[in-house]
Amino acid sequence: MKIGVVGVYQTKFGELWDKSLADLISESITGCILDARIDKSDIQSLYIGNMLASLGNNQQHLSSLVSQILNLNVPITRVEAACASGGMAIFNAVNAIKSGVVDNALVLGVEKMTDLDSSEISKALMNAADDGEFLHGMTFPGLYALLANKYCKQFGLSEVDIAKAPVKNHYHAQFNKKAQYPFAITTQQVLNSPKVADPLKMLDCSPITDGGAAVFLASDTWIHKHMARNGVYLSASAMASDSVSLSNRDSLVELKATKQASILAYSQANLSPKDISCAEVHDCFSIAEVLAIEDLGFYPKGDGSHYLDRKNSYLGGKKPINTSGGLKACGHPVGATGVKQIVEATRQLRYEADGRQVDEAKAVLTHNIGGSGGTAVVNILTN
Amino acid sequence: MKIGVVGVYQTKFGELWDKSLADLISESITGCILDARIDKSDIQSLYIGNMLASLGNNQQHLSSLVSQILNLNVPITRVEAACASGGMAIFNAVNAIKSGVVDNALVLGVEKMTDLDSSEISKALMNAADDGEFLHGMTFPGLYALLANKYCKQFGLSEVDIAKAPVKNHYHAQFNKKAQYPFAITTQQVLNSPKVADPLKMLDCSPITDGGAAVFLASDTWIHKHMARNGVYLSASAMASDSVSLSNRDSLVELKATKQASILAYSQANLSPKDISCAEVHDCFSIAEVLAIEDLGFYPKGDGSHYLDRKNSYLGGKKPINTSGGLKACGHPVGATGVKQIVEATRQLRYEADGRQVDEAKAVLTHNIGGSGGTAVVNILTN
Repeated sequence: MKIGVVGVYQTKFGELWDKSLADLISESITGCILDARIDKSDIQSLYIGNMLASLGNNQQHLSSLVSQILNLNVPITRVEAACASGGMAIFNAVNAIKSGVVDNALVLGVEKMTDLDSSEISKALMNAADDGEFLHGMTFPGLYALLANKYCKQFGLSEVDIAKAPVKNHYHAQFNKKAQYPFAITTQQVLNSPKVADPLKMLDCSPITDGGAAVFLASDTWIHKHMARNGVYLSASAMASDSVSLSNRDSLVELKATKQASILAYSQANLSPKDISCAEVHDCFSIAEVLAIEDLGFYPKGDGSHYLDRKNSYLGGKKPINTSGGLKACGHPVGATGVKQIVEATRQLRYEADGRQVDEAKAVLTHNIGGSGGTAVVNILTN
Repeated sequence: MKIGVVGVYQTKFGELWDKSLADLISESITGCILDARIDKSDIQSLYIGNMLASLGNNQQHLSSLVSQILNLNVPITRVEAACASGGMAIFNAVNAIKSGVVDNALVLGVEKMTDLDSSEISKALMNAADDGEFLHGMTFPGLYALLANKYCKQFGLSEVDIAKAPVKNHYHAQFNKKAQYPFAITTQQVLNSPKVADPLKMLDCSPITDGGAAVFLASDTWIHKHMARNGVYLSASAMASDSVSLSNRDSLVELKATKQASILAYSQANLSPKDISCAEVHDCFSIAEVLAIEDLGFYPKGDGSHYLDRKNSYLGGKKPINTSGGLKACGHPVGATGVKQIVEATRQLRYEADGRQVDEAKAVLTHNIGGSGGTAVVNILTN
């Protein structure tokens, strides 16, 4: 069975002080229904990715909240795996359609992060990490700083090399109206920005973001019966897990879950890394993007940062990475990110990506991780 | 495809001050693996139902925590729908197996509620309700008291009628070593217990419980290939949703999601309510059991409480309800309850239910709801 992406929508990402969690849910679902040209009553199931509503919104029965908003009684599942919640929602929606229990699923990713203040949010996000790391005062920038230091030392690289990721992603975000930070930055600005956890500076870190995204997936049979057009296919969806604590890992210069999920995804799609036209990867911190493009098989281990240049990873290059602006510049509403990546991939494959369109996009990979890589979801979309 | 229940395990339920969340996870999974007579490496996926770890345990990346505990890199999904989290995990595990993406899934339900103190827990549980209800000072006993008052008024019944549920469930719990309260109580004790929210008294309310449960599900093909014995089948698994707020409901004397999920489940299993030998239903409060046995089609609306007698709903009766002791007397570790119900149903169908065995058990129904009925999962098991 082939799974099609029938409709997509993304809200503006940013500090959306005038929007509630329910507002973001409504806007995302309504926008997706309109884009899919379906009626609400066509929806047979929903999957929701969200991390922080329990801590930030006094609300975690999101299946029932969405049932109320839509006045629908279909099965609705909320999944959660920290920043991989959106990807996990996609993976489980695909399984539900493949099972034949439903023919379609609307997948919503949503997060209202600014309802937590700055001290609450650091603590809340550490719920995605090992409680030993938390108790020892670690934060996520601290965990990724450990990975960055180890990586740079092992491969003879520096903060300048990994800073290429946010510079590129901000460049791309200029062409994305939905991005939180639609402006360019320079390497010098990254290096001069306040230090968060050495070697990571503020501009190496993805921001706190409110936002929502939704996609409507359906079996090819349902699509042929109900839709005039075909569109885009989700040719692979794979998920893998790894230990929650960095100290339990065999290696700190690769994320095993990313490698495992991508091997499965390439096999499902019958494609190899060289076939990927462009990719949305999980750049929660600069080092994360470098690890991702290596672990996904695009570049040899230790060499990734050398390819974050105009010839390769920028728009117009051989394999553009994070045309949306990525988590760094488009924004990172944690539970929404994995769904937003599917929105961007679909826009590329529909040739609707406006000023950031990748020429002849044929296969787009999305990569979403939770915590310090304890959960990874890799999807491949094709047209 | 038929889905078999290959292994089951339940921890002791209670206030387990000497056990952590990780302890409960380890014991549940290890016990289930032993019961299933499989090796850890046979597990192809896991599904986790949990509600409160984000608020109570500073941990919500449970997929990654379980990956670490088991040293497994397979896909692991955490789902959450308040007290229906366990049932939702079962439903999604069944879909994953039916999809063919995996051949089996270990489903874990776990909750460590006593890590929240008594003021925190009331607030935390209200995350399963409408935020308007929460802001107006409602608690879950209050919401179910509204349902109880409306129901008793409409059908000319009283607190004495609905008190039959906890009396029966405590009677059954005497025969269950894993129960939190393995002792009998009288109707008078229920009526004399401290009032919580009129007409509900303390002994009408399910307790705060720590506990875990796990089941190992597999496709019939996998079972025939790997197992010497057949065992029990999960012949139906259905889920439905309803509004999170009581004020949005058409009726307060029935739970629409329960009705809808049960109609789907009967249809999947090709059975009718009269075919059900016994059932585990969601008796978070006395009134909830009365509504459940009506909404599941066992008895006419308004008549349910008349059947909570020795002839019908007790062990030895025509259709015993909550032989485990139910949520009231076996205990209600919220995310574990929906999985524990499958454990009890399987024990009944394997004729392993010791002093609480139902004669000639052939089809057992489980019913798990979240919040005030905003999510409902109904499963039917057969042998």
